[in-house]
This record gives sequence, C-alpha cells and structure tokens, in this order.
Amino acid sequence: MDAVVPLRLLPPRAFELLDQTRLPGEVRLFSVTSVEAACEAIAALRVRGAPLLGVAAAATMALAAQLTGATDSELESAAAIVAAVRPTAVELGWSATEAVRLAKFSGPDAGARRTTLWSFAAEMLATRKAQDDSMGRFGADLVTPGSCVLTHCNTGGLATGGIGTALGVIATAWRRGLLTRCYATETRPLLQGARLTMWELARLGIPATLLPDTAAASLIASGNIQAVITGADRIARNGDTANKIGTYGLAVVAARHLVPFYIVAPTSTFDRACPSGASIPIEFRDEREVGGFGSERWSPEGTRGYNPAFDVTPGDLITAFVTERGIVRPPYDDTIPALLDG
Amino acid sequence: MDAVVPLRLLPPRAFELLDQTRLPGEVRLFSVTSVEAACEAIAALRVRGAPLLGVAAAATMALAAQLTGATDSELESAAAIVAAVRPTAVELGWSATEAVRLAKFSGPDAGARRTTLWSFAAEMLATRKAQDDSMGRFGADLVTPGSCVLTHCNTGGLATGGIGTALGVIATAWRRGLLTRCYATETRPLLQGARLTMWELARLGIPATLLPDTAAASLIASGNIQAVITGADRIARNGDTANKIGTYGLAVVAARHLVPFYIVAPTSTFDRACPSGASIPIEFRDEREVGGFGSERWSPEGTRGYNPAFDVTPGDLITAFVTERGIVRPPYDDTIPALLDG
Repeated sequence: MDAVVPLRLLPPRAFELLDQTRLPGEVRLFSVTSVEAACEAIAALRVRGAPLLGVAAAATMALAAQLTGATDSELESAAAIVAAVRPTAVELGWSATEAVRLAKFSGPDAGARRTTLWSFAAEMLATRKAQDDSMGRFGADLVTPGSCVLTHCNTGGLATGGIGTALGVIATAWRRGLLTRCYATETRPLLQGARLTMWELARLGIPATLLPDTAAASLIASGNIQAVITGADRIARNGDTANKIGTYGLAVVAARHLVPFYIVAPTSTFDRACPSGASIPIEFRDEREVGGFGSERWSPEGTRGYNPAFDVTPGDLITAFVTERGIVRPPYDDTIPALLDG
Repeated sequence: MDAVVPLRLLPPRAFELLDQTRLPGEVRLFSVTSVEAACEAIAALRVRGAPLLGVAAAATMALAAQLTGATDSELESAAAIVAAVRPTAVELGWSATEAVRLAKFSGPDAGARRTTLWSFAAEMLATRKAQDDSMGRFGADLVTPGSCVLTHCNTGGLATGGIGTALGVIATAWRRGLLTRCYATETRPLLQGARLTMWELARLGIPATLLPDTAAASLIASGNIQAVITGADRIARNGDTANKIGTYGLAVVAARHLVPFYIVAPTSTFDRACPSGASIPIEFRDEREVGGFGSERWSPEGTRGYNPAFDVTPGDLITAFVTERGIVRPPYDDTIPALLDG
C-alpha cells in the first residue's frame, strides 16, 4: 500500500496537507497558501504530530518569506505567530526560530532567504524520514519476541512524514517478526488512536485492537502487554515528558505492573532550556471537544469541560527513550544532557 | 426540579423504565411487559446501575410470575435468564435468586407468588431509597470542606432509584456546603458520565466539569481533587471491587498522589461468596461499542475492539467503603466479613 504522505512541499507558493480531521472517512488533500491558513490547519489539527509540526512550521516560514519582503522583522513576526499556535509542542517553536536564524545567515536578499527556507523545510522532511528509520531500528531492539504492545494517540507516518516514532518502532518490530499485536487507545477527546492509528495499522497489515482509554489500565494489569510505547511533544532535561493527554495515567499503571514504558522521539523533541516538567507550558483546548465529537453532542447544553491537550509524565516512570542516536536510559539527569551535548 | 424516576412499578402487568440510552437528549419512558423485553433493556443499558439492576431483576421476576404459572421451574428458569444478562453485577443474580426463594416461601399458589414478587420489587425500590439516604449521610462525613471531587460513570438517581450511591454522597456533601465542584469523567465507551452524570449534576444545581477519561490522571496529579468517589458492581470479601471500566486506573493514580479513593455501595453489592477479585466474572461487551458511539463510527471498518465493561480495583487501593450501615475501613479481610455477618 502507498506510504502515508501527510505533507508535501509545493515551492514556491504552497504546501499540501492531508486533512487529518477527515480521516479515516475521507482522504482529503488541500493546499496551504498563507500563514493564516497554515495556523488554522495547525490549530484545528488538520496537520499534527510533534515531528511533523516542525516540518509544517518550516514550510509556513517559507511561505511567509514568499508572501512578504522576507525581512528580519517580517520573519520574526511570522515565527512568533506560528510558535504560539500550539505552545506545548517544542518542535513548532524550534523550527520557526531556526528558520529565522537560517534566513538571516543566508544574507539580506529576499530571494536567497526564500530559497533557504524552502530548502530548510525540505531538509527537515528528509531528516524526519531518516530519523524515523533510525528510531525504528533502535526501538525494535527493545521489543521482545512475541510481544503485544500498547500505544496511545497517533505517532505514525501521519505524525512525522516518515514511518513514525512510536508507531515506526512498532512497524519495524512487526517487520522483524517480533510483534504479535498492537493495542491502540481511542485517545479522547480527538480520537487520534481510533481514527488515525487504527487506519495506519490496517494499512501496515499489523494485527491491531482498539480499546477505550478506560480499558488500558486493566489491559496492562492482565499481563497481556509487554511494553507501552508512545511519542512525545516535549522532553525536559530531567526526562519529564509532555505528551498527549492520557500518557501519564498509562505510565503510572505500567510502572505498577513492571511493564516497560518507552518514549520514542527525535532529539529535537528534547528541550535543553527546560529543566523539568514543571516548566513545560500545557495547552488547554476548547472545552467543547469534551462531551462530544465533531458535530455530535452527548452532554447537556452548557456543560463545562476540562480539556488539557497534554500531560507530563515524570522521568522516573519512563524505562527508556528511543532517539535517532540510540537508546537513552536513566539516570536522565546525566544521560539526557550527554545526548544533547554529545 | 422533579426527582429522577428511572423505574416505576405498574403491577400487575408491567413496569416502566426511563430509557437511559436516550439521555440527555430525550426523556423517554417505556413499558416493559415481558421477560424478553426486560432482558433486552438490561443488556442494552436502557436500565443500568448496580443497585437499580437489583430492582429491575425483582420487577422482571414479578412479570415472569404474572405471565406463567409461577411454578418453581418457571421462576428458576426466569431467574437464570435474568442473572446471565450481565454477569458482573452481583445484584442482578442476587435479586433474581432471592425472588425465587421468597416465591417458594409464600407457598404453591400462583396468585400468592405473584403478590409476593410485586411486593418484593416494591420493597427493594423503597430499600434503595432509604439506603441511598443513609450512604449519603455517612459518606458526606468523609468530604472535607471546600472539596473538589472526581467521580466516574453514573451513580446517581438513574442508577439506584434513590439519590444515588457515589453521586448521593456528592449531592449530600453539596447540600451540607462542603463541596466546591464535582468533576465527572466521560466514561467511554458508553459515556455514562458525559450523558447521565452531567445531566443529573445540572438538575441538582451542583457546579460540575466534564473531562475526557484521559485527563483524569493529570487532574488528580494537579492537586485539585480532594477525593475520588465511585460506585461498585461487585465487592469481594477482601475488598477487591469490580466497577465500571476505568475505575482501576483512577484508583492507581489516586493512590500515587495520596488522594482518598472511596467506594459507595450498599451491603448487597458485597458478595460473600467471592473471596477476591480473581473470582469476579468480567462481562465483555460488543466490540463495536469501541471506535464509535451510537450510529457514529470513527474507526476504519472492521476495527477489532477490546471492550470489558468492568475492571477490578484491589482492596489495597481503596481508602474506605461507604455502606448504608456505615464506613468500612481496612483491614478488609476483617472488616468486610464483620459487615456481612454483623
């Protein structure tokens, strides 16, 4: 089956996105031709996934350079706008800031800056693919033969542009014959597990079972899960990890049952400026995402909703990180700085 | 606002149910006039809630007596059918079996047996109301002033016919001025929290916030929850408790953060024949309840679903049980037998 292509660069005037809010019912591609449209797509989760957001931010910066004089202040302003759309995802801000730095480095000429930024976006996408492959190889080494694994949210090709982070590890383990089955949580409120991960697992031909988020704890307790594997949106220097809401609860239960809990993320997801989880800003989303889905409402009108998009899992609950440079194990206060500075 | 009336006895030929699958959108009452229709309503969760299932089973047995010769074998056969519809809920089987015993005790006359069984159903409903009030009083004593509490699934009047078990405690604490806010989980897959608990909380005028099941762990970790309070479907002699899927995960996280975890249930929910959670049968429901809701589907066609209706929380994670006879604290190996035999 064709590889998933969630983002395609169409320089000089556009990039194309697969609208992930329509999956699995509809495979709809659309062109993004303005910074505003890009921000809307990021905010509405038409494009999502921490690693792919870095690429989307780079593409948006290229678009900003194309549509303006590409001056320092125009690019800095665009970068600030892009980074603020989803504050928890470190890659968004990193990529936008890096784009400004590279543009300045390429000199004052607008044409040169535009070329630089389109190249940067293309390079980021290529890097993602290579990093995913590398994480897949390292991570699959951690999967014991005959394993059933549990994953949360979507971390596949839709989230990265490559084979994925956690789902890339799972796919690699499957290709090596190590995997028996992948269990995926629905991942309320936006159901990325039910909609996106199950769609990707079916395309990959991996035996897969979906579960309500509520059933994860007893599934882990049953002894039928050999590892929990997820991605990350931002990782502090001490290993505290912000990821999709619900990750923390899975990690607490996995620790109680001595089930290994692995985070798969490129080194760009580690935030060297962030000492611990307490410093990670948490995005709260529209409360109407709770109590319904899409146009459906299940709760009474006027229901208040508590809707953080992410939670923070303390490093002490994480067995290991899988990065494109290798496996990182505790003590994270030592090993993560070594990874970032190495 | 009028009290919630989820079940009304209409002897000699029917009982009436509020169809809980239609809430909160529609308040639809319907008459049940056969054992088959009663079993369908129980299986489809039109009537639900451990305590109310006991009443529904009694009413179904009265109907069975009315529609047959009310012989021993006819009643025993009806009881077996009713108890098997939802095997985890101890009250269903207990009530059906007790109905057979009482019918036999009332003698061989069919008319006498019918009268006995309708009386038994009426008595059970009245007992529920009195027990709920008592649990509410005992349980509210555990709520510290200014508390925010978290609850799971629906345990209100819809689940019992009275003021509810866990939600009865919450309502009583609210009336006493002890409660600041009640947080309720959506409770996937059937969304009893989003649909039923939020509806009841709104009717009671209690400040309430709904959250995705995924957000419960970080909400507890935030320090803003002073107690987690739920109901139960079956409690073993050692305190292990089967309740709505998702309860176990909440208990594990509450324990990590030293947040008290209370179970509110009448003594009839304790199963003296059950030594531990390992002996509690767990009902698995249709896998299509996962990956969609009602007629909506979010997952790809053919998605496999893991759908246990209940999980088991070990007694060591439960701070106390609130019963109509008072508070039961560890060591449960001593205190629960004392409760049941006392």
